[in-house]
Amino acid sequence: MANPTAAMLVIGDEILSGRTQDTNSNHLAKNLTEIGIDLQEIRVVADDPAQIVNAVNALRGSFDHVFTSGGIGPTHDDITADCIAKAFGIGIDIREDARAILATNYTNPADLNGMRLRMARIPDGASLIDNPVSKAPGFQIENVYVMAGVPTVFKAMLASVMPKLTGGTPLLSVSVRVDQPEGNIAGPLAKIAAQHPDVGIGSYPFIQDGRFGSNLVARSTDKALLDIVAAKLGTI
Amino acid sequence: MANPTAAMLVIGDEILSGRTQDTNSNHLAKNLTEIGIDLQEIRVVADDPAQIVNAVNALRGSFDHVFTSGGIGPTHDDITADCIAKAFGIGIDIREDARAILATNYTNPADLNGMRLRMARIPDGASLIDNPVSKAPGFQIENVYVMAGVPTVFKAMLASVMPKLTGGTPLLSVSVRVDQPEGNIAGPLAKIAAQHPDVGIGSYPFIQDGRFGSNLVARSTDKALLDIVAAKLGTI
Repeated sequence: MANPTAAMLVIGDEILSGRTQDTNSNHLAKNLTEIGIDLQEIRVVADDPAQIVNAVNALRGSFDHVFTSGGIGPTHDDITADCIAKAFGIGIDIREDARAILATNYTNPADLNGMRLRMARIPDGASLIDNPVSKAPGFQIENVYVMAGVPTVFKAMLASVMPKLTGGTPLLSVSVRVDQPEGNIAGPLAKIAAQHPDVGIGSYPFIQDGRFGSNLVARSTDKALLDIVAAKLGTI
Repeated sequence: MANPTAAMLVIGDEILSGRTQDTNSNHLAKNLTEIGIDLQEIRVVADDPAQIVNAVNALRGSFDHVFTSGGIGPTHDDITADCIAKAFGIGIDIREDARAILATNYTNPADLNGMRLRMARIPDGASLIDNPVSKAPGFQIENVYVMAGVPTVFKAMLASVMPKLTGGTPLLSVSVRVDQPEGNIAGPLAKIAAQHPDVGIGSYPFIQDGRFGSNLVARSTDKALLDIVAAKLGTI
């Protein structure tokens, strides 16, 4: 049976302006790969309602799981929760369980001000995602997991979500470093790839100290087959 | 007049598996922001012909410029050039000018082997993008710029392309660091944002040494207006 599929949706002008380097996608990718969920697409869109709604609807219809990061804080530019509600065509309002969780952050109840209460706005029917770092929860609705953009919080939320996901057969990989330019080894590499159509074989060139080399990576769910291919790659 | 728009298409299983952290998008974003081209979307797709062709066609129809990275080397898994040709519905073959450029890499003509010649396969009518690092050219066809995935080569190719792009009005930004949690300042921040609907104001929270803070970023093409907003943000 094919592995479950997933997409990542990163929401944030700061990624698109170059101000911030997105690292949440890479963290998600590593976690999903380990449990056999195939991350098949990453999209980054701006803090723009139409773009967010369109991307959420395109991705949730095409993949088994969609993970989002960004835009669920207390400030005026945090519009993700409302956009998710709009994408699903459902209501959104402050929810008592989310408000109660937020309230544990503050000894003075007045500190849970109107803007902070924005973080308790949860689309109807969603379940909350635990946030051990800063309390304000993420949420899951159907196959969409809505999480924070701050990397430490994103990681903590994803750690809450991972045990609930049903993985597939983890894709194993072996990497063989070759200190030759890709063009020298592309022929024999293509032959090995043709002999093993069920093994994904990629060549990732690098430049180190002015010299070209390549990491040859073979990927398969079949450990024995991978060992055979790795041995062949080692003779290139 | 609105600024030109752009999208980035990153092609590569290694990004989606988490093996490699994409940094080319961030480099592109910074360069485009400086000259007033608005990067509005980033997509990462796998080394899969259908996904690449669909993404190229979706993006080139929606944005003024599309920049791609990855998949133009000599190995069997380098399928980007063929997918671009397919997306445009045009032919692709080894081209003499590209072959001549590649040939300058090798004193022994036999080194320009069949696999290396894959890098001289250029879609009909494309113009070449200079690659001062490793010679193998990228190419431009209509509004799509096809470049390498290796960051040093991507950067060199982009440097060849940038002078040919017509920018818009650069979006300027100011950043004000506030050592308070977002929830404390979200109210006054929303008021400033409401007073200046033409200025994009974002709040980017961070956690440093266990304490919450936020970088408030205002973006506008109008320097004088930006100074006014920055002064207000400084009083938060």
